[in-house]
Amino acid sequence: MSIKTAIFGASGYTGQELIRILSAHPQVELVAATSRRYAGVPVAEVFPSLQGRTSLAYVNASPEEIASGCDVVFLALPHGVSMEIAPVFVRAGRKVIDLSADYRLRDLATYEKWYAKHTSADLIGRAVYGIPELYRNEIKNARLIANPGCYPTSIILGLAPALKNNLLDVSTIIADSASGVSGAGRDPVVGSLFCEVDGGFKAYKVGKHRHTPEIEQELNRLAGEPFAVTFTPHLLPVKRGILSTIYATLKKDIRPAELAELYADAYAGEKFVRICPAGATPNISSVCGSNSCDIGVVCDPRTNRVIIVSAIDNLVKGAAGQAVQNMNLIAGLAEDCGLAAPPLYP
Amino acid sequence: MSIKTAIFGASGYTGQELIRILSAHPQVELVAATSRRYAGVPVAEVFPSLQGRTSLAYVNASPEEIASGCDVVFLALPHGVSMEIAPVFVRAGRKVIDLSADYRLRDLATYEKWYAKHTSADLIGRAVYGIPELYRNEIKNARLIANPGCYPTSIILGLAPALKNNLLDVSTIIADSASGVSGAGRDPVVGSLFCEVDGGFKAYKVGKHRHTPEIEQELNRLAGEPFAVTFTPHLLPVKRGILSTIYATLKKDIRPAELAELYADAYAGEKFVRICPAGATPNISSVCGSNSCDIGVVCDPRTNRVIIVSAIDNLVKGAAGQAVQNMNLIAGLAEDCGLAAPPLYP
Amino acid sequence: MSIKTAIFGASGYTGQELIRILSAHPQVELVAATSRRYAGVPVAEVFPSLQGRTSLAYVNASPEEIASGCDVVFLALPHGVSMEIAPVFVRAGRKVIDLSADYRLRDLATYEKWYAKHTSADLIGRAVYGIPELYRNEIKNARLIANPGCYPTSIILGLAPALKNNLLDVSTIIADSASGVSGAGRDPVVGSLFCEVDGGFKAYKVGKHRHTPEIEQELNRLAGEPFAVTFTPHLLPVKRGILSTIYATLKKDIRPAELAELYADAYAGEKFVRICPAGATPNISSVCGSNSCDIGVVCDPRTNRVIIVSAIDNLVKGAAGQAVQNMNLIAGLAEDCGLAAPPLYP
Amino acid sequence: MSIKTAIFGASGYTGQELIRILSAHPQVELVAATSRRYAGVPVAEVFPSLQGRTSLAYVNASPEEIASGCDVVFLALPHGVSMEIAPVFVRAGRKVIDLSADYRLRDLATYEKWYAKHTSADLIGRAVYGIPELYRNEIKNARLIANPGCYPTSIILGLAPALKNNLLDVSTIIADSASGVSGAGRDPVVGSLFCEVDGGFKAYKVGKHRHTPEIEQELNRLAGEPFAVTFTPHLLPVKRGILSTIYATLKKDIRPAELAELYADAYAGEKFVRICPAGATPNISSVCGSNSCDIGVVCDPRTNRVIIVSAIDNLVKGAAGQAVQNMNLIAGLAEDCGLAAPPLYP
Repeated sequence: MSIKTAIFGASGYTGQELIRILSAHPQVELVAATSRRYAGVPVAEVFPSLQGRTSLAYVNASPEEIASGCDVVFLALPHGVSMEIAPVFVRAGRKVIDLSADYRLRDLATYEKWYAKHTSADLIGRAVYGIPELYRNEIKNARLIANPGCYPTSIILGLAPALKNNLLDVSTIIADSASGVSGAGRDPVVGSLFCEVDGGFKAYKVGKHRHTPEIEQELNRLAGEPFAVTFTPHLLPVKRGILSTIYATLKKDIRPAELAELYADAYAGEKFVRICPAGATPNISSVCGSNSCDIGVVCDPRTNRVIIVSAIDNLVKGAAGQAVQNMNLIAGLAEDCGLAAPPLYP
Repeated sequence: MSIKTAIFGASGYTGQELIRILSAHPQVELVAATSRRYAGVPVAEVFPSLQGRTSLAYVNASPEEIASGCDVVFLALPHGVSMEIAPVFVRAGRKVIDLSADYRLRDLATYEKWYAKHTSADLIGRAVYGIPELYRNEIKNARLIANPGCYPTSIILGLAPALKNNLLDVSTIIADSASGVSGAGRDPVVGSLFCEVDGGFKAYKVGKHRHTPEIEQELNRLAGEPFAVTFTPHLLPVKRGILSTIYATLKKDIRPAELAELYADAYAGEKFVRICPAGATPNISSVCGSNSCDIGVVCDPRTNRVIIVSAIDNLVKGAAGQAVQNMNLIAGLAEDCGLAAPPLYP
Repeated sequence: MSIKTAIFGASGYTGQELIRILSAHPQVELVAATSRRYAGVPVAEVFPSLQGRTSLAYVNASPEEIASGCDVVFLALPHGVSMEIAPVFVRAGRKVIDLSADYRLRDLATYEKWYAKHTSADLIGRAVYGIPELYRNEIKNARLIANPGCYPTSIILGLAPALKNNLLDVSTIIADSASGVSGAGRDPVVGSLFCEVDGGFKAYKVGKHRHTPEIEQELNRLAGEPFAVTFTPHLLPVKRGILSTIYATLKKDIRPAELAELYADAYAGEKFVRICPAGATPNISSVCGSNSCDIGVVCDPRTNRVIIVSAIDNLVKGAAGQAVQNMNLIAGLAEDCGLAAPPLYP
Repeated sequence: MSIKTAIFGASGYTGQELIRILSAHPQVELVAATSRRYAGVPVAEVFPSLQGRTSLAYVNASPEEIASGCDVVFLALPHGVSMEIAPVFVRAGRKVIDLSADYRLRDLATYEKWYAKHTSADLIGRAVYGIPELYRNEIKNARLIANPGCYPTSIILGLAPALKNNLLDVSTIIADSASGVSGAGRDPVVGSLFCEVDGGFKAYKVGKHRHTPEIEQELNRLAGEPFAVTFTPHLLPVKRGILSTIYATLKKDIRPAELAELYADAYAGEKFVRICPAGATPNISSVCGSNSCDIGVVCDPRTNRVIIVSAIDNLVKGAAGQAVQNMNLIAGLAEDCGLAAPPLYP
C-alpha cells in the first residue's frame, strides 16, 4: 500500500529532486507535479535525466484539485506563495511538507521583519520544524512540517550537541557557510550563469541573509537562551553541497577526544548523521546525492576555540531528502526508506 | 540468499564504484576488496563517502584466498595484471567479470599488437564480451566476462541498430568521443591534476588509442564485414561521462522518422538504453550516476550523413554498472537489480 | 596619437572583452561604450574586474552621436541589429568592425535563408571578411570588417593550408567543435546556468548551426570549388575556448613530417598561429585569454584520414581579439599591439 | 637597459607564473630557469601556453652558475630548500626574492617549531617581508625579500587599516579563507586530482596550517601587541584565487561609511588594492590573472562585528606578481611595470 504524494511547484531544482527521490521510493506513488510554466509538458522532457523514471506531465491545477487526490503534499514554492497554498491542504486534512520559509519562524514579527506580511499566520503555531534528529516525535504527529532551510540544517546539526551540553560561549558563534549554485534555484538570472560562477567564490548578503533568524531561533532553543549569531553565506562553483565552518569559544575545558565522543553519542543511531574520525573534517563531495550530514569537530587550544565543520547536499538533506525523511516519519515508514542510496563519488 | 562477491583491485575509481553499487545491491554480499596500497585500511577511510555503507577494510590477499570465499569476482585491474589473476578464479570455478582489456579482443595478434604479450591466451576463446544488449544469452552462461571498455560501450550501442540494418557506408565511420577524467583512474599523474584539466579540452592519443581495435572488432561483427574506423578521444573537464558523436554516410535513403523508429525498436524493452525524442541528442549530465545509455540520431540531408550521439556514465555503464548488469544476468536476477537509482541531476 | 574607438553594445561578454583589451591597448582611447540596459551605470560596476581600468559609464546613445566622436567603432550586437546600425557609421566615414554575422556571407540569399531578411544588403559587397591570416591586405583598406564567427575562425585556420595545397577530398570534411559557455552570451537563459552546464557535455543544433554557411563559404573559397561540410558544435563546461577536431580523407600521399612542415610554412611569420610539435595537438587551456590559434595535425594511415585539431579562445581570436587585430591592421599599427599578453595558465 | 633575472625552481605553477609575467615584462630579460626534472627541455614544451613567448630551456645549474649571470633571482622552491640556495646568491651580491617561507618569520624558534631546522638563520634578520603596501621603503633597499605567503597576503591587507586604527578586539580575529588548487602546486598527489577536487569543498589543516604564525607575526606588528588568531584554510574547486572572510568584534563605535572611508584612505594611491563600493564584497573571479587585491568591509550591527572580505589571485598577488612588484621596487621601476594586464573575466 503506497502513499499518494503530490508536489506543488515541481519545476525547480528542489522540485526535480523530490521527483527523483519519490520516483524511486518503494512506498510512494507520485500522483501529481504542478508547474504553471510547463503545464502539459512531460516531466521527462524538462528533465531528460528522468526519462523512463516518470511518465507524469506537469499540470497547472488548483490546490483544491491536487488535495483531492493525495495523502501528502510537498510545497516546493517560494516564500510568500506557500502561505497562500498550504491552508487549502491543511483544511482538506492532507499532510503538508512545506519547503519554503513560511512556517519556519515561530515569531510572526520576526518573519514579517525578514520576509513579508504573513497571510496565514494562524498556521505558524501548528507547524513543526522538520529536523528529525531534533524533533522526531513532534514530526510523527505533525500535519504541517516547516522543512528547514539548507544553511540552517547544516549549522543546527553542527552545533546541537555542543549547545545542549552547554560547552560554548554563545556570544561568540560565527557560521561561515558556502553553498553550491543549485541553492539559488533554476530561475535564469545573470548571477547564476556558468560564466559568472565558474572559477569564482564570493560572500553574499553579508549580515543580511534571511536564514539568520531561522538559525538563531533554533540555536537559541537548543541553548535555552537568546543570542545573535554572525552568519556569512558564500557561493561555491559547484552544483550541490553546503559546507559550514562554525566557530565558537569554549567555555569549558574539554579534551578533543571527549568532544568527539560527545558528538558520536549525540548522534548514535542516527542514519543520516556521520561523525568524522578524530581530527578529520568533511568534504561536500562525500555527501553528494545523499541525505547524510557529515560533521567534524576540531579544538584549537591556541585560541580556546572549537571549529565545527558540517557538510550536506543542499538539495537532499538541505531540502528534498529531509522532506522525504519527514514524510517517512509521518507515514510510519523506516526513516531511510527511499533515501538509502550511497553518495555519488567522485 | 545472497551472492558472495569480491573485488580484486578495489582502490581506484572503478573499484570504488563497484563498492558503491554492490554495497546497496539487495542480493549481494561484498566479502572482500583487495588493495596492496591500502591493505588494512577501512574502505570508508579511503573513501569517506562510503562511511556507514561498508565496514570492509582492504586486504592484500592472494587470488586463491579470495577465490575460496566468493561466488563472483570483479577484476578492476590494469590490463596485463588481470591476465595473471583471472586464471586462478576460473580454475577455482568462480565466475569472473574482468574490467580490464585482457579478454576483450578475440584475436590474440591484435591484442599483442596494441597491448602486450598475453600470458593466458587460452582463456580468450572462453570469454564473452559483456554488452548485455547485444550478447545477453551468451553472458548468462559465461564463466568469464570481458567487460567492455567505456568508449567502446558508447560507440557500439550507438551504432548497433544502424549497422545491423546495413544503413551505413562503413568506410566512413568516425567516432569523436569525449570522456570525464575519472576514466584516467586515480593514479596521481600531472595530466589528471585539477589545474591541468579544469578549463581545458583536448584530444589525446589521436589515431592511437587502444580502444580502437575493440571498437572495430565489435562494429565489424555487427556489420558482418571488416573495416577500420577513426576514433578520437578527448578529455573533458568533468568527473563522469562519455559523449560519443559518431558520423557516417548513409548508403540508403531513410527518413529521419524511420531511423528514429528503427532505433526505438532495436532497444525496445531494454532497461538501460533510452532513445531521445526526435531531433534531440543527449547530455552526459542526464545519465550521471546511472547505468543508462542515452542515444540521439540526427540525419543531415545536406551531406547525406547520419550523426549519432550517445551518452553514458563511464564509471557505470562504461565500467562498474555494466559489470553488475552482467553479474545480474549470470545470477539470474533482474537485470536492473541494484542498478535502478535515477541519474543524479543537476 | 591614439585612435578613438567606441563599442556599440558593450554589456555582453564580447563587449566586456573588447573593453578589457582596449583599456590596456597603448594606442587606443576608448571614448564610449553603449548599453540600453545599463545606461548611466559605470562599466566597472557591471564588471568589477575592470575597476580602476576604465572610468567609463555606459551610455544609451544613437549611432549618430557615437559616430561623431570616434574613428573606429566595434559593433558587438546580435545579428539583425548590426545591419541597422552599421550603415550610419559607414555613411559617417567611420571604420566599422562588426562582430555580428550580418556582413559575413557574401551571398544574400544564403544569409536570408539561415538568418533573416537583410536591411542593408548593399553593404555586403563592401565588407571584408576579417581573418588577417588570409585577407591581410584587403583588411588594411577596408571600411567595413565582417569579423568572423568563433567556430569558423577555428575551422578555417585549421583547414586553410591543407585546402590551399589541394590535399583533401573535400566531400569528406567533418568539423566536430566544442565551445565554452561564454559563446552563448550573457543573457540569462536556463541553458547557460551553472547547474545546467557544469558536469555536462552535449551536441547542439546538430546539422543546423548558423555558422555552417560561413564555414562553407570560406572553405569553398580556399579550395576553389563548392562543397558542403558537416559541422557539429558542442557545449563545454568551461568559460572560454573552442576546440575543433576536423576530419578529412587525404587524396594525396603525404608523410606526416611533410604535412607538419607545410603547416609551419603556411603560417610562418604569423604572430597568432602556433603549430604544435609533430604528433601533438592543442588544448584550449593553452590559449586562454590570448589571441593565439594553436593547430596540431595528425595523419591516420589506418584510415587515410588527416585529423586537424585547432584551439582558440572564443572571446579573443574568436571575437574581440581578432577584432582588435583587424583594427591594428586598419590603423597601421603592429598587428599584435595590445594583444601581446601571454595566455593565462593554469 | 633591462634587468637580468633568473628563476630557481621554475617548473611548478609559481615558477610558470613568474615566466609568464617576466616574459612580457618590458624591462626584464629572463636569462635562466632551473628545473632538475625538466633539465634540457624547452619551457614551452612543458607549458605549451608559453610557446612563442620564451625560447628558454630548463637548466639544471648550480646557484653559483646562475648567480654569475643575473641581477635578481627568484627562488620558487619549497621551504627548506630555499635556505640552502639563498645564501649563495646573497654572498654573490645578487638581489634575492624568495617565494618560500624560509625567511618570513623573524623569530627563529617559531620557524623551527612550525617548519624545520633552519640552516641559514643568520639571513633571517636581513630579510624584508615583501608586502609593498606596508613596507615599501624597506623593500627598495632590501637584498633579500621574503615574499609573503598567499593566505597571509590576503589577510594582512584585509586587516591592516583596521588594526592600524585600533578598531578591533584583537582576541576575536578569525580568518576563514579558501584557496584555488594551484596553491597546492604541480606535484602529482591524489588530493589535487580533478576528480578529488571538482564538486568538492573542504577545510584542511584546521588549526594547524603553517601560514598561521606568519599571519600572527604581521598582524601583531600592525596592532603593536601579541595575540593569536584562528585561521582556517579551505580548498576551492577553482584553479586560481583566494578569498578570505575575516571576522572581528569592533571595540569602537564606527559608522559603516566611516569605516569604508578609512579603508579607501589607507590604500589611496595604491595601484594594486581596490576597495569595493559600500556594502559590496569581492569575488575572486574579478582579480583572476591580475595583481589586484580587492577588499570589501561590512559592519554587522546585530553582533557588533566587522566582516572584511579580501580577494587575490594566489599565483599573482599571492606569489609571482607580488614578487615582480618587489623586484620593480628594488630596481626603481614603476611598481606596476609588467603587471598592468587587467584581470581575465569571465
